[in-house]
Amino acid sequence: MHILITGAAGMIGRKLTERLVIDRAIGGQPIEKLTLIDIVAPTRPVGFSDHVKTRAADLAAPGVAEKAVSERPDLIFHLAGVVSGEAETDFEKGYHVNLDGTRALLEAVRLAGGGYKPKLIFTSSIAVFGAPFPDAIPDDFHLTPLTSYGTQKAISELLLADYNRRGFLDGAGIRLPSIVVRPGKPNKAASGFFSGIIREPLAGQEALLPVADSVLHWHASPRAAVGFLIHAAGLTREQLGDRINLTMPGVCCTVGEQIAALKRVAGDKVAARIRRAPDPLVERIVAGWPSRFDARRALALGFTVEGSFDEIIRAHIEDELGGKIA
Amino acid sequence: MHILITGAAGMIGRKLTERLVIDRAIGGQPIEKLTLIDIVAPTRPVGFSDHVKTRAADLAAPGVAEKAVSERPDLIFHLAGVVSGEAETDFEKGYHVNLDGTRALLEAVRLAGGGYKPKLIFTSSIAVFGAPFPDAIPDDFHLTPLTSYGTQKAISELLLADYNRRGFLDGAGIRLPSIVVRPGKPNKAASGFFSGIIREPLAGQEALLPVADSVLHWHASPRAAVGFLIHAAGLTREQLGDRINLTMPGVCCTVGEQIAALKRVAGDKVAARIRRAPDPLVERIVAGWPSRFDARRALALGFTVEGSFDEIIRAHIEDELGGKIA
Repeated sequence: MHILITGAAGMIGRKLTERLVIDRAIGGQPIEKLTLIDIVAPTRPVGFSDHVKTRAADLAAPGVAEKAVSERPDLIFHLAGVVSGEAETDFEKGYHVNLDGTRALLEAVRLAGGGYKPKLIFTSSIAVFGAPFPDAIPDDFHLTPLTSYGTQKAISELLLADYNRRGFLDGAGIRLPSIVVRPGKPNKAASGFFSGIIREPLAGQEALLPVADSVLHWHASPRAAVGFLIHAAGLTREQLGDRINLTMPGVCCTVGEQIAALKRVAGDKVAARIRRAPDPLVERIVAGWPSRFDARRALALGFTVEGSFDEIIRAHIEDELGGKIA
Repeated sequence: MHILITGAAGMIGRKLTERLVIDRAIGGQPIEKLTLIDIVAPTRPVGFSDHVKTRAADLAAPGVAEKAVSERPDLIFHLAGVVSGEAETDFEKGYHVNLDGTRALLEAVRLAGGGYKPKLIFTSSIAVFGAPFPDAIPDDFHLTPLTSYGTQKAISELLLADYNRRGFLDGAGIRLPSIVVRPGKPNKAASGFFSGIIREPLAGQEALLPVADSVLHWHASPRAAVGFLIHAAGLTREQLGDRINLTMPGVCCTVGEQIAALKRVAGDKVAARIRRAPDPLVERIVAGWPSRFDARRALALGFTVEGSFDEIIRAHIEDELGGKIA
C-alpha cells in the first residue's frame, strides 16, 4: 500500500508518520511506500527510508497536486492547512492553503483517470461550528463557523462529500477536538493554554492560565487523533453512508477539572506551577468556541478516545517525557 | 441607488427587474441605475431605459466580476447560476458557474477598496439540505446536500457569511422554496411537474403527474420569491446577526392538496386535465428532497409568503394569465 500524507511536517503529520512506520501496515495491509509532503520538507522517518519520498511543496500551486497523486497513492491523509489564527490574520493565505489546496488535491484525484479512486481522510475541525450552541452539539447541527478557518474547513468538508458522492474517491472528514497536550514550545494560539497548563508544569516550568477555571472544552490527545485517522482509513463506504464528515469523541472537562487531573497524576507541587493571569481577550475568544458534543455517530462507528483527562496527561508523559515528570 | 442583478435573464431575475422598474425605489430609496448581467444578454426593461446597462458575460471569467462592481453598485442581487439538473450532469460547469462565479464576485467586492461595502443578496436553495430529514427541518439543521448544486449553494452560503463577518459586504443568503407556478414551457427538471400540473390545465392543456398524490413539498410563488429578495435588501446587519443564510417560509402541501386547490380556484373541468403517469425515477428523486421547514427565523424577520396553495394559483392567474383561465 502507498500512503500520501499532506501536512506531514505538522504535529499530527509527524505523529501519524511515526505510528505508520512502527505499524508497517494499516487495516491489515502492509505499507510499501510513504510520500510525505508539506510546505517545509518533512523529516525522513527512521527505519523506513527505502520507501519514503519527502517533498516541500504548496499543494495549491500549479501542478503540485497532480504530481502528488501521479503515483496513485491508495490512501491519502490530507492534513495540510494553516492554523486558525493565521487564517484569520492573513485572509488570502488562509483561502489559498485551506481551500484552494484542498480543491486542487480533489481535482487532481478526479482528473487522474483510469479508475483511480483512493481513500482520502481529511482533518477537519470543530471550528466548523459557531456559537450560539445547544448544551451538547448534535451530529446534525448546522455549519455556521465564526472564523475564516472554520469556513475553509466547512467548505472542504462539503467538497469532499460531493467528490465522495460522485464516486471520485472514498472520503471521510474527521472533525478533531482540541488536541492536548501539544508537545513543543508554548505558542500564541488562543487555545495554547489548554496544553500549556499541563505541559509546562510537567517540565518544571510556570504556566499562565488566562481564563476562569469554569471554562469547559473538548479534548483529545495527539495519540487519540492519530487513532481517529487510522480508524477512519479502515471504514467502508457502506459504514460511512452519505454523511462522511464526523465529529470525533472527546473528553469534555473544565479547566478546573484539567488542573485536578494534573494534581492526581503529578501531584500538588506540579499543579502549583500554574499561575492565574486572566486575559479578557482570550476569555472572549474562548467563549465563542464549542465545548461539548454528542458524538454518537463516531462512537457507533468505533472511534475511541481517552476516558478521562487523567489519561490524556498520562499519554503525554509516556509519549513525550519518557515517563518522567520534572 | 445603483442595483446590480446577476442572472438577470432568468425567471426570478426578470420578475425582480420588472418589480424594481415598477417600484422605482427600494427601502424608500429611489433607484437611479440598474445593471443587468447574465450569460445571455438580459432584455432591457421598458420604461427605465435611460438608466439601464445590460451585459452578456460569465462572472467566473477573468475580469468580468471586477468590471461588474467597478461602478460600485450599492445593492447586488446575485441570482446567477446553473440549475440543479445541469450542475449534476455537467460537474465542471456547475462548479465553474455556481462556485467560481460566486467567489469571483465576492473577491471583486473585497478587492474594490476605498471602503466599498455593498449589500449582497444571494439566492440559495433548500437543496443545501439532504435526506434523511426530521419531520420539519429546523433553522439549525446541518448542511448535507445530496447534489453538486446543493453543495455549490452551501459553499457559497459559507463564503458569503465569512465575507459578511469580515466586513467586506453586508450579505444575506435566501434559501428559496420550490418556485411554483413557473411560467413558460414545460421543462425536463424533475421538479417541473409541481408547476406543470397547475400551469398546463389552466392553459387548457393536459399535464402529466409522475408521482403519488401523497408527495409533500414546500412552495412559494415567483411573486413571493421577489418579495423575499426585496425584503432581505431592507434588513440591517444588526437584524440578521451572524447567521445570514435563511430558509424562507413556504406553503407546505401534498400534490393531492395542490390538485384540490386547483379545483377550488379553477373548477373540476380544469383539474381533470391532469393525467396520472407514475414515473419511478422521478418518484425516487423527489423522495430525497426536503418537504417541510420550520422557518421561524425568517418569519420573525418579517418575510412573508402565500397563506395557501390557492393563493399561489391565484398569483399565477393574475401575473401570467391576465386573470383568465382557459
